[in-house]
Amino acid sequence: MERVPPRDGLARKADTLAMLTTPAIDVWVATASPTGTAHLVPLSLAWVDERMVVAVEGSSVTARNLTATDQARLALGPTRDVVMVDAVLEKRVGVTEDEALAEAYVAQADWDPRSSAGYLFLVLRPVRVQAWREANEIPGRTLMRDGTWLV
Amino acid sequence: MERVPPRDGLARKADTLAMLTTPAIDVWVATASPTGTAHLVPLSLAWVDERMVVAVEGSSVTARNLTATDQARLALGPTRDVVMVDAVLEKRVGVTEDEALAEAYVAQADWDPRSSAGYLFLVLRPVRVQAWREANEIPGRTLMRDGTWLV
Repeated sequence: MERVPPRDGLARKADTLAMLTTPAIDVWVATASPTGTAHLVPLSLAWVDERMVVAVEGSSVTARNLTATDQARLALGPTRDVVMVDAVLEKRVGVTEDEALAEAYVAQADWDPRSSAGYLFLVLRPVRVQAWREANEIPGRTLMRDGTWLV
Repeated sequence: MERVPPRDGLARKADTLAMLTTPAIDVWVATASPTGTAHLVPLSLAWVDERMVVAVEGSSVTARNLTATDQARLALGPTRDVVMVDAVLEKRVGVTEDEALAEAYVAQADWDPRSSAGYLFLVLRPVRVQAWREANEIPGRTLMRDGTWLV
């Protein structure tokens, strides 16, 4: 891998969008409690209208942390083909309350949470997106800053 | 995968230890600031004397969070063959200050941090270890609790 030249920004954005829209892809979701306890879980992802959407139990640590702190850091891909996203909670919606959102989620994810009592969709707005493979891709890794694509 | 029967505890522990000792493996490290901002990075892992060892810049967010909160949640493996570890910071050591630790780290990781100024080893003691692949492995996923292997 080390001899592969670094991808340019446009290629990284295209690869990032391809990863975000992959059917049945999981995302690592790191959240924090207000008092500084880290949490991390893998969740099925859908990319809907430039937002990352996951479905969790309303009582889960992830839902509680996000409700309290509004912020998450998410990772997609293997550790050497990474997309890292800092995101903020835009809204939380009961899984039966927004049919268009649920249909979009189910179309990408490999399960349907609508029959799971107490589940919520958490809709996360990316603020910063970074993508890199090996060390030679650390320069130029930031593709979105302050919610705006740079490429 | 759904028709594969769940592994028993001994098999999961063996698979977990095999993953922890894999050469050049990366681990996802989630930490939190004292005020509840989540961080997440992939880092090269070494498993040394039942501890998880990573090397980071002393000024990095991960080092600062762990110094402040003493706690991390780590994930190994792809999202559908997961080892999840809740761990506490046992010690932080300059990369040139403990030769035995450095040799053990370098023997497993695919780089040598000793020439990187300002880098530290963070030695993390697992408190809870869980391992699962698909939904049928959610029962029995806890292999270590309160720092003690259950299997």
